Amino acid sequence: AVCRIDCSLYVITGDKFGHGRPIVEVAVAAIDGGATVLQLREKDFTSRQLVDVGHQLRHLTRQRGVTFIVNDRVDIALAVDADGVHLGQDDLPVGMARRILGPGKIIGISTHSLEQALEAQRQGADYIGVGPVYETHTKDDVLPPVGVDLVRQVSARVSIPKVAIGGIKAHNVAEVMKAGADGVAVVTAVWAAGDVSGAARELLSRVREAGAGNR
Amino acid sequence: AVCRIDCSLYVITGDKFGHGRPIVEVAVAAIDGGATVLQLREKDFTSRQLVDVGHQLRHLTRQRGVTFIVNDRVDIALAVDADGVHLGQDDLPVGMARRILGPGKIIGISTHSLEQALEAQRQGADYIGVGPVYETHTKDDVLPPVGVDLVRQVSARVSIPKVAIGGIKAHNVAEVMKAGADGVAVVTAVWAAGDVSGAARELLSRVREAGAGNR
Ligand code: NI
Repeated sequence: AVCRIDCSLYVITGDKFGHGRPIVEVAVAAIDGGATVLQLREKDFTSRQLVDVGHQLRHLTRQRGVTFIVNDRVDIALAVDADGVHLGQDDLPVGMARRILGPGKIIGISTHSLEQALEAQRQGADYIGVGPVYETHTKDDVLPPVGVDLVRQVSARVSIPKVAIGGIKAHNVAEVMKAGADGVAVVTAVWAAGDVSGAARELLSRVREAGAGNR
Repeated sequence: AVCRIDCSLYVITGDKFGHGRPIVEVAVAAIDGGATVLQLREKDFTSRQLVDVGHQLRHLTRQRGVTFIVNDRVDIALAVDADGVHLGQDDLPVGMARRILGPGKIIGISTHSLEQALEAQRQGADYIGVGPVYETHTKDDVLPPVGVDLVRQVSARVSIPKVAIGGIKAHNVAEVMKAGADGVAVVTAVWAAGDVSGAARELLSRVREAGAGNR
């Protein structure tokens, strides 16, 4: 699939998993290791904190040629001129977000079923997340794993880029890529790593290796 | 002072104080009782819930000629075409909000000191909240009361409309109005009342009575 974004290694911030390291420091290391997308997702931050960190991440990602996405908050995305937003099923509907953001911004949608994936594509999403593929404890509101089978089903029916998410580690990257994912999204596999760059590098090399067979 | 909004009785939603009554039902009663501004402020709602309730409140307030303001979330305000936003000191800076919202929307700012009030006016706020004037337990992050003296100081130096907030009840409305407030903002005094319309009516009549002497 053609990616409006290169979603090979999509890294999501997880400040509470970062062992106290500043977000920007972890982000730099993740980008050094090959992250192609960075998403700011900090549900406990105030709007002001999101703007402040978002502004720093916008400078960093622009400098490094990395796509920068803001989770949920369309206003923060506009305020810091992010490349787009990522919306969950509990966030703004795609149409409303598009009207506020304009045509130039990327909109990604979290999907947990084939129906949601098809609906997201129909509504004009630029990419979708599919998951949680495996068990994960990153979010407070944990959904049951959908399994790699859903990645396969969605890949057969949905043409926009699909990022597999949820419990992705180096050892299962090949499986989700073979199932048709265009890339993998991770929080802890990168953010909680002792060697953030090394962890990102390892994930990206496995994505590239397995993905090469898909094209 | 001239109000771009009539801030005489500024009612803020407080779903957890509403004894299980639907937000729209309480809002209707508050407007029946004379609320001149309605602010949607539900920190625990998802974006989707804010859009859904906000949309209903937008219809209601437009029909009834009441100003509709959204707390913190500039994106939700745009999504439901609210009249404006109310920003705390931890929310987006005024300038950023103005850039996203355009010149036609109202921006209000919470202030807790003379410095913050002057700064809000300088940055182009359309009105300010001043408080908490009295002790209040409505918010989780409670600030120490600033007292009616701050209302007096701010009124002497700030020309944009000033809404007194924090622990305002019928019995202290006269005091804050005499100190120079253009109106009062309340959550529980209206939202938790058994007779919402009656509570609003009582507050508004005291605002009008005391305010008449200020003009
Ligand atoms: Ni800058």
